[in-house]
Amino acid sequence: MDCSGTVLVNIGNHFDLKASVFQAPRRGIYSFSFHVVKVYNRQTIQVNLMQNDYPVISAFAGDQDVTREAASNGVLLMVERDDRVYLKLERGTLMGGWKYSTFSGFLVFPL
Amino acid sequence: MDCSGTVLVNIGNHFDLKASVFQAPRRGIYSFSFHVVKVYNRQTIQVNLMQNDYPVISAFAGDQDVTREAASNGVLLMVERDDRVYLKLERGTLMGGWKYSTFSGFLVFPL
Amino acid sequence: MDCSGTVLVNIGNHFDLKASVFQAPRRGIYSFSFHVVKVYNRQTIQVNLMQNDYPVISAFAGDQDVTREAASNGVLLMVERDDRVYLKLERGTLMGGWKYSTFSGFLVFPL
Repeated sequence: MDCSGTVLVNIGNHFDLKASVFQAPRRGIYSFSFHVVKVYNRQTIQVNLMQNDYPVISAFAGDQDVTREAASNGVLLMVERDDRVYLKLERGTLMGGWKYSTFSGFLVFPL
Repeated sequence: MDCSGTVLVNIGNHFDLKASVFQAPRRGIYSFSFHVVKVYNRQTIQVNLMQNDYPVISAFAGDQDVTREAASNGVLLMVERDDRVYLKLERGTLMGGWKYSTFSGFLVFPL
Repeated sequence: MDCSGTVLVNIGNHFDLKASVFQAPRRGIYSFSFHVVKVYNRQTIQVNLMQNDYPVISAFAGDQDVTREAASNGVLLMVERDDRVYLKLERGTLMGGWKYSTFSGFLVFPL
């Protein structure tokens, strides 16, 4: 995933900007949410939230008539220490890049 | 609500999978969010987040040209002990089921 | 921003209903999310989440074929004491008002 965007908040430094991977500093329940914005093109996109190599949830954006449309979803996840959580563009392309897209995660409570 | 999906996280066991009802273990402020995905069909759906028998917020999905579209919303709610919070399909049908839909809630702080 | 809606939760009284501005009671990481619903009209809307006078994230709704469509996004923000966080309609109009729209913020952890 090419993330040329800005990481607004990265307290604890557990988000790897280069690879756009969140690596859990400790075991617990985390809240993750994302809004991936596609710019007008002919393709449907599917975005997966991945935990290690497993797709947890998906979101879609497929309208061909609008300029910008977001594929959004969110989830509470039980995460083990050092688990890697990241977004994967499963289908389609983001020709215009990730502008306006967000990906947020925080610890709700430790286990 | 027929929830044939997976409950990814259910710490405390306060989410009733059968009926898809969250029952609050204690008084406090909870964050709830949902993304209900409808598969291509001719109908507009309206999804309500219900607290007991009262609709708190609504979300809509009504595009007829796309394969999958989500009705999404989220809210902070003051919830009394034993209050029941759940989703209700107020309008339309989900012929393809609830696949890819999510419903999340967690305690932000107790009162 | 004309917010004629209901504030469902305003613990701490740090949300100014009149101006729809959240003023941070203390320094910390806050989670903000919004869903601004536009009713059928010909215009594309762009909604900005503003921190003081700076736009942090944007969301768009531009489909002309649907009755109701939401411009949604969310973010974790590092906020200083007395910072003001609010929504701004950067482009377009909301002729039907803010019905069904939500704007939520809470402290994830203090700094």
